[in-house]
Amino acid sequence: MTYVAGVDLGATNVRVAIGDRSGEPIAIVRRPTPQGPRGIDVTEAVLEMLRAGCGEAGIAPGRIDAASIASIGPFDLAEGAVVDPANLPDSIDRIPLTGPVGELFETAEVSLHNDATVGVVGERFHADRNPDDMCYLTISSGIGAGLCCDGHVLSGWDGNAGEVGHTVVDPDGRLTCGCGRDGHWEAYCSGTGIPRYVRYLADREPSVETDLPLEAAGFDAADVFDRAGADPLADLVIERIGRWNATGVANLVHATAPMVVTIGGAVATNNPSLVVDPIREHLAPLVVSNVPDIRLTTLGDDVVIYGALASALTGGSGDRSVLE
Amino acid sequence: MTYVAGVDLGATNVRVAIGDRSGEPIAIVRRPTPQGPRGIDVTEAVLEMLRAGCGEAGIAPGRIDAASIASIGPFDLAEGAVVDPANLPDSIDRIPLTGPVGELFETAEVSLHNDATVGVVGERFHADRNPDDMCYLTISSGIGAGLCCDGHVLSGWDGNAGEVGHTVVDPDGRLTCGCGRDGHWEAYCSGTGIPRYVRYLADREPSVETDLPLEAAGFDAADVFDRAGADPLADLVIERIGRWNATGVANLVHATAPMVVTIGGAVATNNPSLVVDPIREHLAPLVVSNVPDIRLTTLGDDVVIYGALASALTGGSGDRSVLE
Repeated sequence: MTYVAGVDLGATNVRVAIGDRSGEPIAIVRRPTPQGPRGIDVTEAVLEMLRAGCGEAGIAPGRIDAASIASIGPFDLAEGAVVDPANLPDSIDRIPLTGPVGELFETAEVSLHNDATVGVVGERFHADRNPDDMCYLTISSGIGAGLCCDGHVLSGWDGNAGEVGHTVVDPDGRLTCGCGRDGHWEAYCSGTGIPRYVRYLADREPSVETDLPLEAAGFDAADVFDRAGADPLADLVIERIGRWNATGVANLVHATAPMVVTIGGAVATNNPSLVVDPIREHLAPLVVSNVPDIRLTTLGDDVVIYGALASALTGGSGDRSVLE
Repeated sequence: MTYVAGVDLGATNVRVAIGDRSGEPIAIVRRPTPQGPRGIDVTEAVLEMLRAGCGEAGIAPGRIDAASIASIGPFDLAEGAVVDPANLPDSIDRIPLTGPVGELFETAEVSLHNDATVGVVGERFHADRNPDDMCYLTISSGIGAGLCCDGHVLSGWDGNAGEVGHTVVDPDGRLTCGCGRDGHWEAYCSGTGIPRYVRYLADREPSVETDLPLEAAGFDAADVFDRAGADPLADLVIERIGRWNATGVANLVHATAPMVVTIGGAVATNNPSLVVDPIREHLAPLVVSNVPDIRLTTLGDDVVIYGALASALTGGSGDRSVLE
C-alpha cells in the first residue's frame, strides 16, 4: 500500500495530512502557525504535526513513500527552504523543510511548491473532466494562481510561475501593493488589499454613503462583504473588485488558455456570489479567445492539502492516470 | 539523413524553408501572401513554394520527414486549417494546411501552431543557454508571445496560449483594439496600434508639438520611430509605448517566470534601441520575482522560419537534446 503526506504551511495556519492512493486524507492535523522565534521552530512544529498525523492514521512514518509541501514563499528551492517570508515575524529568516521532512519519512521524494501551484494539482487530480488545461486562482491574504497548460503544471525555474497577484491591473498605480509596487491586482482585491481599497474609494468618492467602520483597528474585508446590499460604499467596492478580478483572470486566460478556472481562497470561498459570480459576469467581454468555465473550488478550505497529497502521489503532476 | 520543412504564413508574406538536422535552412523561398480569392489559393501557393524549396535544395519532397507550419490564426486544430483570418480578405474563410502539406511530403508529422509559439521553439533550439524557461515576444502588426516554462512550450488546448496582445494593460480602456475590445496591449504598441495611439495622444495633449503627418493615408509606426529625438509627440509616444510594453512583459513574467525574454517582430527589430531598451529600463521596478534578461532576437526576421524547422526536427519542443 502507498501512503503519502502533505503539508500546507500558511502564515496563519498549518495543515498536514496523511493519505493513501485514493488521494483522500486518512488524517488531517490543523494548528496555528508558530510565529517563531526562529524558522527552525516552524520546522519542528511541522515535523511534530506530521508525527501526530501518522499516529492518528496508525501508520509508522517510515511507511510514507512521498511527501509534498505547499508553502508561502519565497523559496530557496535548492535547499528546500522558505526564506524571509513576508507575513511572518522578521526573526524567521529561514524555514528548512524538504530535508527534515525527508529524514522523518526516510525518503528523498519530498517536493516544495507554492500553495497555488499545489492547489491546481489538487484540482486536477480531483477534476471530473478537462484536467489538462486549467488554472486554480486563490484570492486570500494574497492572490496567486496555479497554472496547468497542455497537461503540464507550471512551476518555473525559481518556483515563481503563477505569481499573478503582482500583475499590473492598474497602470495608473492608484494603490500600492504590499510588495511596494503600484497597481498590482492583489493591492485591490486580496483580503489585505480590500480594506485599503475601501478607504481609498471613500476618500475619492465622498458622496457615496457608508456606515463601514473605516477607521476601526480590526476593519477587514469581511466587514465589507457583510454589508453587501446594505451599504452603498460596500456595494461600490464589490462592483469594482469584480471588474479588477475579471481583468486579472482575462490576462491569465490569454497567457495560458485554460478551459476551467477554479477559484478558492478565503475571500472567494466565504463570498462566492459576491466574488466568483462577478468574475464570470465580467470576463467574457474581455476575452478574445475561448472563455473558460469559472467555478468555485469544490475542495473548499482544504484544496491545498488535497493538492499536496495528490502531488506526492503523482510526482507533482496531479495526473491520476499515472496511478492506473 | 533527416530533412524537414518549415512554413511561416503571415498576412503579408509567406516564407518556406527546407532544412537538415542542424536546423539551418538549405533553401528559403519568400513570396507575398496571395490575397485570395479563396483559402485554397493560399494553400496552393504554400504547396508550390514547398516544391520550389525542395527543388532549390535538391531534395525530393518524399524525403522530407516532418514539417511544421507557423501561421496567423485562428485555427481549426482538429482539421489543421486556418479559419477566418482577421487580416486577410473576407473571401478567405478556410485555409487547409496540415492535410495537403502531409500529402505532399507523404508524412503524418505535420504540425500547426501560431507564429509566436513557433518563435520560442526557434529561440530555444538556437539558444546558447537557459533554454528551458524563456519567452519569445513578437511586436509586429499584432503582439503575441511564445512561452516555454519548465522545458514545456505552451500551446494551449485551442492553440491560444500566449495570446498576450489581448491582455488588458489599460483598464480605463482609452483605446480600442482591432479585436473590438478596450485597453488591450496591442491597441497601444503594435504596428497597427501605434498610429492610432499617436492620434489619440495628439488629441489629448494638443500642447505637444509635432510635425508628424497624422492625417496622411500612409501614416504608420515607421514614421513615428523615424522622428525620434526630433519630434516631441514622437518622443512622447515612444516613451509611453516603452511603459506599456514593460507592463505587458511584467505580466508575462509573473505568469510564467522566464529567465530570458527575446523580442522580435518588425516593430522591435527595426527599432531596437527605441523599443527593446525601454522595456529593459522600465521592467525591473514592475517585477516582484526574478527579472529576466531582455534581448533582441538574434534570429532577426527569420526567427519564425528557423522555429518551424526546429519544431519539425524536435516534435515541437525545440529541445535540441532529443537529436543527440
